[in-house]
Amino acid sequence: MRALTYQGPRQVAYEQVPDPVPDHVDGAVVRITACGICGSDLHIYEGHGFSPDLGYCIGHEAVGEVVEVGSGVRNFSVGDRVLVSASTGCGSCGPCRRGWVLGCERGLSGCYGLSHALEGSQAEAVGVPFADGNLARIPASISDDAALVLTDNAPTAWFGARQARIRIGDVVAVVGCGPVGLMAIAAAQIMGASKVFAIDLVEERRQLAATLGAEPIGDDPVRQVRELTSGRGVDAVIEAVGADATITLALSIAAVAGRVSVIGVSHNQAFPFKLMTAQTKCLEFTAGLCSVQQELPTLLRLTEAGRLHPEQVVTHHLPLSEGAAAYELFHSRADGVGKVVLDPTR
Amino acid sequence: MRALTYQGPRQVAYEQVPDPVPDHVDGAVVRITACGICGSDLHIYEGHGFSPDLGYCIGHEAVGEVVEVGSGVRNFSVGDRVLVSASTGCGSCGPCRRGWVLGCERGLSGCYGLSHALEGSQAEAVGVPFADGNLARIPASISDDAALVLTDNAPTAWFGARQARIRIGDVVAVVGCGPVGLMAIAAAQIMGASKVFAIDLVEERRQLAATLGAEPIGDDPVRQVRELTSGRGVDAVIEAVGADATITLALSIAAVAGRVSVIGVSHNQAFPFKLMTAQTKCLEFTAGLCSVQQELPTLLRLTEAGRLHPEQVVTHHLPLSEGAAAYELFHSRADGVGKVVLDPTR
Amino acid sequence: MRALTYQGPRQVAYEQVPDPVPDHVDGAVVRITACGICGSDLHIYEGHGFSPDLGYCIGHEAVGEVVEVGSGVRNFSVGDRVLVSASTGCGSCGPCRRGWVLGCERGLSGCYGLSHALEGSQAEAVGVPFADGNLARIPASISDDAALVLTDNAPTAWFGARQARIRIGDVVAVVGCGPVGLMAIAAAQIMGASKVFAIDLVEERRQLAATLGAEPIGDDPVRQVRELTSGRGVDAVIEAVGADATITLALSIAAVAGRVSVIGVSHNQAFPFKLMTAQTKCLEFTAGLCSVQQELPTLLRLTEAGRLHPEQVVTHHLPLSEGAAAYELFHSRADGVGKVVLDPTR
Amino acid sequence: MRALTYQGPRQVAYEQVPDPVPDHVDGAVVRITACGICGSDLHIYEGHGFSPDLGYCIGHEAVGEVVEVGSGVRNFSVGDRVLVSASTGCGSCGPCRRGWVLGCERGLSGCYGLSHALEGSQAEAVGVPFADGNLARIPASISDDAALVLTDNAPTAWFGARQARIRIGDVVAVVGCGPVGLMAIAAAQIMGASKVFAIDLVEERRQLAATLGAEPIGDDPVRQVRELTSGRGVDAVIEAVGADATITLALSIAAVAGRVSVIGVSHNQAFPFKLMTAQTKCLEFTAGLCSVQQELPTLLRLTEAGRLHPEQVVTHHLPLSEGAAAYELFHSRADGVGKVVLDPTR
Repeated sequence: MRALTYQGPRQVAYEQVPDPVPDHVDGAVVRITACGICGSDLHIYEGHGFSPDLGYCIGHEAVGEVVEVGSGVRNFSVGDRVLVSASTGCGSCGPCRRGWVLGCERGLSGCYGLSHALEGSQAEAVGVPFADGNLARIPASISDDAALVLTDNAPTAWFGARQARIRIGDVVAVVGCGPVGLMAIAAAQIMGASKVFAIDLVEERRQLAATLGAEPIGDDPVRQVRELTSGRGVDAVIEAVGADATITLALSIAAVAGRVSVIGVSHNQAFPFKLMTAQTKCLEFTAGLCSVQQELPTLLRLTEAGRLHPEQVVTHHLPLSEGAAAYELFHSRADGVGKVVLDPTR
Repeated sequence: MRALTYQGPRQVAYEQVPDPVPDHVDGAVVRITACGICGSDLHIYEGHGFSPDLGYCIGHEAVGEVVEVGSGVRNFSVGDRVLVSASTGCGSCGPCRRGWVLGCERGLSGCYGLSHALEGSQAEAVGVPFADGNLARIPASISDDAALVLTDNAPTAWFGARQARIRIGDVVAVVGCGPVGLMAIAAAQIMGASKVFAIDLVEERRQLAATLGAEPIGDDPVRQVRELTSGRGVDAVIEAVGADATITLALSIAAVAGRVSVIGVSHNQAFPFKLMTAQTKCLEFTAGLCSVQQELPTLLRLTEAGRLHPEQVVTHHLPLSEGAAAYELFHSRADGVGKVVLDPTR
Repeated sequence: MRALTYQGPRQVAYEQVPDPVPDHVDGAVVRITACGICGSDLHIYEGHGFSPDLGYCIGHEAVGEVVEVGSGVRNFSVGDRVLVSASTGCGSCGPCRRGWVLGCERGLSGCYGLSHALEGSQAEAVGVPFADGNLARIPASISDDAALVLTDNAPTAWFGARQARIRIGDVVAVVGCGPVGLMAIAAAQIMGASKVFAIDLVEERRQLAATLGAEPIGDDPVRQVRELTSGRGVDAVIEAVGADATITLALSIAAVAGRVSVIGVSHNQAFPFKLMTAQTKCLEFTAGLCSVQQELPTLLRLTEAGRLHPEQVVTHHLPLSEGAAAYELFHSRADGVGKVVLDPTR
Repeated sequence: MRALTYQGPRQVAYEQVPDPVPDHVDGAVVRITACGICGSDLHIYEGHGFSPDLGYCIGHEAVGEVVEVGSGVRNFSVGDRVLVSASTGCGSCGPCRRGWVLGCERGLSGCYGLSHALEGSQAEAVGVPFADGNLARIPASISDDAALVLTDNAPTAWFGARQARIRIGDVVAVVGCGPVGLMAIAAAQIMGASKVFAIDLVEERRQLAATLGAEPIGDDPVRQVRELTSGRGVDAVIEAVGADATITLALSIAAVAGRVSVIGVSHNQAFPFKLMTAQTKCLEFTAGLCSVQQELPTLLRLTEAGRLHPEQVVTHHLPLSEGAAAYELFHSRADGVGKVVLDPTR
């Protein structure tokens, strides 16, 4: 089949690779109808990946149709329209059965497209291990675009909002308005926020956020938040960037007893944390990685009922064959680019 | 009246000071029958206080009898046996009415004995502002020693345990087994912990902790916790020291999805936080200061019913006149010293 | 002053009554700018009141301006624009301070306009006992109509929705679409319901509900709910009528593990409860009365931020002098009558 | 193999029956080392069973060793020491994977020993369908007696206590002190109750309850609870009988804002519920059936750590061959009989 592979920094190839096969009796193969580029794919693109491998298929967001299942798969059949959860686990242990694959007791917590160990899904097809735990059926009323956002971006945002323990009536800030940040805005609203401030340096992203009902903030966010909250600060912050400066900003704008939830990925092992300030303000600070499976039941229900519109963050569609250009576009943050969806069938 | 006053680093005087008077119509005066030395008093004792003042009364833990009330006080009368909450607020605003004085909307959140602004309670009597909000009646079955621990140490520990979101069955670690840490052990047990590890370098403190039912850990806590939890770590940590090393330890021994609650006081504004590790482990980290009023209803009920025994942390009783020696003793951490109670009536 | 008084079944008089005076040092007097007729006033109107008194002022929903305060009132001054909480308490005990006046430890939990004991507020002015606990300041951006609905109907609906423990993504049904039911629809939406079914026999009320975003159901609600939920039933029901038939309906349409929250007032002491069915379905059933004070902080925040629009349930405005006609109108349920607001200033 | 079979009212036979075989590829067979008689078995014994079948194996509490597994079973192997959850489900659907078998989306929620459809476990061996979902491994430190109580009685009690939403410091009452009630006492204590009243008419059962730390109440429980709570009533009640009188008692002794959780099985479809009283008191009333799988992780952890001692409710051991006598004994409630354990290996 054809797939995008990682060939080194800023080098993504569209090439022929071996067809996937089911992983033991538990596995399945999904023919992909839409796949996405995630912000974390850009880390790999920039050469800061998680493996020294070259030539592996990249990508971990995919929706499509089951074309092959192992004999041990109970919940899925050939022909099922499914989304592939970005996060994977053994599917059988206690935590995995509850959807919390990050706590997989067999140590099989993982993700597609980070190395040859689990080939990625920016491809015509993908092999899914432990299909019962790692696939989800897509209701007919949910589009491919919406389902694609539900494979990773929306669940990550939702997880971040849950970790921020948003209470009804809270004033919330979201730092960073890429696809994940936009979904975090929607999450905060559904969880009952009275107001959501959307902080981003890019004008087009702020406009998108405003379309979703958030109040956009560009320059001098510390001062603006102070003014807009009568000096009080916000009850909860969802940080969707991962840089030291934005995390520090998040801590600064939190009110007394505020919660700061970091879902932007950080590699800092000595982040300078203002502990005295945090203690005086009684802050709760969380950082984490999402178990997609844990969030999906609620997100599918909300999307099917029309309360959540994950497709709103999609801005561009390209054929998979133009993957290299798609990466360049998403990396540029130009043209108001949000979610870029690749189509392997064109 | 006679009181202990701060005269400079390691200098505490027992001397004559003006008698307190009720603060406006809302205030009261309490004749003190027992007062305590708190770990945070040692900061002042060591010369790291919160004010340049000299000669002010120190101390913020006291129980006694109401001897005077302003005309606006509704909930207390002369003769009531009361404990004086270490934390103070206006008592009237929304947060104060709910007991959360740290969120006082009038900016009147404070503490006794930090400066001349609000004289301390290591004295024969203390003036209590906004008595309706800042006093609590002591049920007859609760001793002075128990009530004294309920003015600050036990509520702080309880707050820390609540912030650690202890769930039933959790394995919990308490770092630092002074009076607050010992109360945190009791809190974790009442909240349903299946096991509590008590980490301290001082042998006598570990023994006290073991008496309360905790499993003591001295040397190499990281390794020991790892072994005792099959490599998993603990679900929740309550840090009751405030040093960089102990906070780092707390973060190290937390399991995936663990919670770390810091109640030890830190002054570090650049604590080197291992953010990448925290994110991979999906940690929740909180630091805070207790609003005593918020915790008291539950603590009084548990103490009255005999489920909590705050007096267990009291190890020494001295007359108030021997205050200087009492400070020296508590500062030394020698002789298995826990809570030191001063008696102004002897 | 002029006021509406109860003179016997279906007899409401507009007449001269004594001016109110502050109740002790804690009380206040509020000059009323708008007052409402509540569904529970109809019980009195129909002759099923709570007292044998005649000639007392009726009504318990009012907004206006403070014109007199006792010397012990701290939180309010003459000139403040306020709403008068329908529920009252001593304002000083622990439960009252937290807003839960129903749990008033002094036994002073009550309501206006049920007898001469506490004169009602369908009047030019009302005396408010314990003003610190029983009044709330109205932000400038909130209209009198909105504030009036916040004195009772919206808090009751909110309380009912909280008791129904609505979880994000839940399918919810509201039984009865008068002003309280309409507010319950809004509550369920803000709490994250994916769908809300609005069940009422009156076509105009269903239309109003649909305007708020609910899915209206008229005939054969058991069958319709079954069909619309693939046989599963709804996760939560808020019952806002109080009749045996509607409560039985609520229990019937609840799914396995569903919650049924009754806020419609019932006088039945032998309601025939299908216990075996409830147990097989693992139902949670709650019935209760609202402490307005407990709900107000969140409701004021949501209204001020524009997420809640309590004024949406107001359909008619009349001068107070036309009170008799207003009662007749509201009692008729004709003309799509929702909330009827009376103006004592015209 | 040999097993106890139901032959009609008060007729239990010990006889030869066919050996069980694994149910499809998902099933397992467990050789039983201990099995128990449950209160609900007495319904069958008295002729009020759930099926017209005769000759089926009865019983649904068993521990033992896996002797055969289907090829699709992932989590268990021959030789594993296991407990058989009394409740069963498909093990694969969303609710079942989370342990909530009562919500099984495939409609396979069930129980052993109610008819020939799923043969019971008062036998030398039992066939377990969907073994991955319906078995649990027993840690070495947990005895057969303890594990047996964990198959049904303890989880039911725990579920009941969870439904009663016990908060730390609550005063709790348990109505009925058979094995389930005794476990409910332990649950309430671990969940932080400050006091637990144990209400039962049988003196020996009250004594057992007192041994666990509860305060026993025999005669006139309404008056006694009133006196012991200063007229307030209890915060939460767990009803473990299921009779109209005991459920009415439970509702009577609940305080304002109290919770009443019924786990005793009722067949009444017109229970006379005092709705007006319940509403005035703002009660929460729940009735339900336990999904054992949902409670087990916490219960196993607590038992392994020595905080819960399920074996405390076991009072009698008999060989399986004396099953008829064992039923008679348990039915009599004589001799302080609590849990009766049968041994198929003697």
